[in-house]
Amino acid sequence: MTPPPTVDLLIEARWIIPVEPSDTTLEHHAVAVLDGRIVDILPTADARQRYAAAETVSLTEHVLIPGLVNLHCHAAMTLMRGLADDLPLMRWLNEAIWPAETRHASTTFVRDGSLLAAAEMLRGGITTCNDMYFYPEATAEAFSRLGLRGVLGITVIEFPSQYASDADDYLSKGLATFDAWRDDPLIHFTLSPHAPYTVADKTLERVASLADELELPIHIHIHETLSEINDSLRDFGQRPISRLDQLGLLGPNLIGVHAVHLDDGDIDRLTLHNCAIAHCPTSNMKLASGAAPAARLLDRGLNVGLGTDGAASNNRLDLFREMQQASLLAKLTTGDAAALPAHRALRMATLDGARALGLDHLIGSLSPGKAADLCAVRVSDPDALPCFHPVSHLVHVLGRHDVSDVWVAGRPRVQGGRLLQITNTELLSTARLWQNRLRQ
Amino acid sequence: MTPPPTVDLLIEARWIIPVEPSDTTLEHHAVAVLDGRIVDILPTADARQRYAAAETVSLTEHVLIPGLVNLHCHAAMTLMRGLADDLPLMRWLNEAIWPAETRHASTTFVRDGSLLAAAEMLRGGITTCNDMYFYPEATAEAFSRLGLRGVLGITVIEFPSQYASDADDYLSKGLATFDAWRDDPLIHFTLSPHAPYTVADKTLERVASLADELELPIHIHIHETLSEINDSLRDFGQRPISRLDQLGLLGPNLIGVHAVHLDDGDIDRLTLHNCAIAHCPTSNMKLASGAAPAARLLDRGLNVGLGTDGAASNNRLDLFREMQQASLLAKLTTGDAAALPAHRALRMATLDGARALGLDHLIGSLSPGKAADLCAVRVSDPDALPCFHPVSHLVHVLGRHDVSDVWVAGRPRVQGGRLLQITNTELLSTARLWQNRLRQ
Repeated sequence: MTPPPTVDLLIEARWIIPVEPSDTTLEHHAVAVLDGRIVDILPTADARQRYAAAETVSLTEHVLIPGLVNLHCHAAMTLMRGLADDLPLMRWLNEAIWPAETRHASTTFVRDGSLLAAAEMLRGGITTCNDMYFYPEATAEAFSRLGLRGVLGITVIEFPSQYASDADDYLSKGLATFDAWRDDPLIHFTLSPHAPYTVADKTLERVASLADELELPIHIHIHETLSEINDSLRDFGQRPISRLDQLGLLGPNLIGVHAVHLDDGDIDRLTLHNCAIAHCPTSNMKLASGAAPAARLLDRGLNVGLGTDGAASNNRLDLFREMQQASLLAKLTTGDAAALPAHRALRMATLDGARALGLDHLIGSLSPGKAADLCAVRVSDPDALPCFHPVSHLVHVLGRHDVSDVWVAGRPRVQGGRLLQITNTELLSTARLWQNRLRQ
Repeated sequence: MTPPPTVDLLIEARWIIPVEPSDTTLEHHAVAVLDGRIVDILPTADARQRYAAAETVSLTEHVLIPGLVNLHCHAAMTLMRGLADDLPLMRWLNEAIWPAETRHASTTFVRDGSLLAAAEMLRGGITTCNDMYFYPEATAEAFSRLGLRGVLGITVIEFPSQYASDADDYLSKGLATFDAWRDDPLIHFTLSPHAPYTVADKTLERVASLADELELPIHIHIHETLSEINDSLRDFGQRPISRLDQLGLLGPNLIGVHAVHLDDGDIDRLTLHNCAIAHCPTSNMKLASGAAPAARLLDRGLNVGLGTDGAASNNRLDLFREMQQASLLAKLTTGDAAALPAHRALRMATLDGARALGLDHLIGSLSPGKAADLCAVRVSDPDALPCFHPVSHLVHVLGRHDVSDVWVAGRPRVQGGRLLQITNTELLSTARLWQNRLRQ
């Protein structure tokens, strides 16, 4: 008789929602993990017989799901959480955010802000964050320290900052970061031109050719506000999406963030090129930008993931809220209470986000061969009971406070609701330091 | 020298937001409580000199606010939390909720469901709940046991149930409950005809005259869906609000719940009669009913409070979420990011709700003479920092999990996040019992 194969970790759960196959909830199943990868998903009773596990974690009243994928964030802006609420986008940018960034943005600012963000995200079940900001090397350092899987923008914007003097300088600094980190298994990259209204044609063309050459996604804000579109019509004689199309940026590797204001032509172009959308419902509502037609985009077969946006415009990096908000907003805007049902919202926050990033071979659903990026959610708080449909509960009842355990690539990051790689004391002193600096 | 006056309780807080005066945040202030009432609010340093307190609670990193007022709930429906999601209102009622109620509703069902609801609400900072359901005596019993201030509906609907055989029977049973509980200082009442489409003219007239006679508010669902309005036009030749006007129900004591679909004439009538509205944004989005024009109603000077609705259509009894949702939804629907700012949302969830219930002499803001219904919210979770504006944080960052201490009429109900009057074990076994029964 051959001995049972050894695995590093066996996680037994009351429920497992693998996301794919769709609409599936497995009861009393287990995930076997070896070398950071899922090697099997099977009934717990069978798993105990089939595998010898170095460690077994028993989640008797939990739902186990893929780690959540935050498809759009500016992690460092966590330091500006709630700095200027109740203002429209352009005033918020011009009067509050950009001046604060001009005064304060630095390697330290970005590293500290990204550290707070990574802590908040991991504790809330997010295992991958697609980020766009200055000093991506500082964000990479922070994410790496806490073990969050990061997708970092090689960011470019036309105006000078402390970080870089012009578009070429942004790109060369971002590319240097890419070279320094490209072999790290948890750090990935995108090209991140800020937006059509802040990046020139020539730079966008360079971005398109770099994206081709390096096989990277392009991560860009598009059609967030009506004024962005009107300004583009005035300045370029066309809508931003049409301009991006002409400049060669549209394709399956494009992640268009927000995409709130879309006409039929925009949607046709996005569909034709098989683009992905990062839907950020709370940010769009808070800044009064509008409601992206997420349900309609899904009906057209477009890939739509979910993003929190930065903490300055949300003000939480909480994908549980975004799942619920996306579902509620779709029901409201379509007038159909069956629109964007719970399982669809969960898929947006996991597999669809992974696919947009070109990482769906690795993350986004629970299946053998994929990385063990996992999130366990307790269903034992009396405030969350009774529970008839775990997937519906994930979207409409439970929240990030119910997240108990998180693994990235099979390694524990959160256990019993507590972060393992950093103390609360350090997080609090970092937050308070910047609160005092920014208040001045 | 005279000794300092003795108070029962001195609560010292980092911040106090009394709601009235508006836009006021007091720093390092204290609330002095005697015989269940607030007797003073003053700087902490002065309070320590001026009062001898039997007990002092020091909340060094907390915001102290008035206990939240849930202006619309069906507490017992907590047992049906998430029973049937992603369905439109009438299918949800006809295929899921009403059949379950027909099979299960009983004194025990209502008492147990109301107990779970009261626990969830108190732990989330809600100190007053305006409820509408069958068997209000069972809800009164549950609320009273946990020390939640309850406003119970003398409920009437035209169709027979286990609870009552016809409209007269509903009213006489509700009035008997009113008589039994009317002297309880924490139990108040409304007349609660379910909705214009489920209650006949004759009954509505009786309700209006009872409300006059007993000096009670009238609590009724109105204009929740377009079909409700179209059916009324077909059956009565007028819109429901116009019908209620004609039957004598509109007045400052009317609490119209939902009020999603309003034309200019409806708003004029509501304004003319100084009616109050219970805005339930999450429920309205989830059931795809629409978005009530809350910002417009506030601009017209109408009194608009916030309600969670029941857990079967929300699926949380969480007024922190409703504050944020009301603010976000107003920004979205008006296109104005300054619409319904944070302090306004907090006032809707406290003083405006109290005023709608005719209880603003007693609760809804922190001022000497009012009952000590208080909620303390911790601002020390790293996920909530930095914090520049506490009131904005209450609406956009913090949540019910940050509630640490709750008092009703000066008596502690939640301490350090834990309920004092009931164990988690009892709550869990109650929830599981009904989960099993309802699943069958």
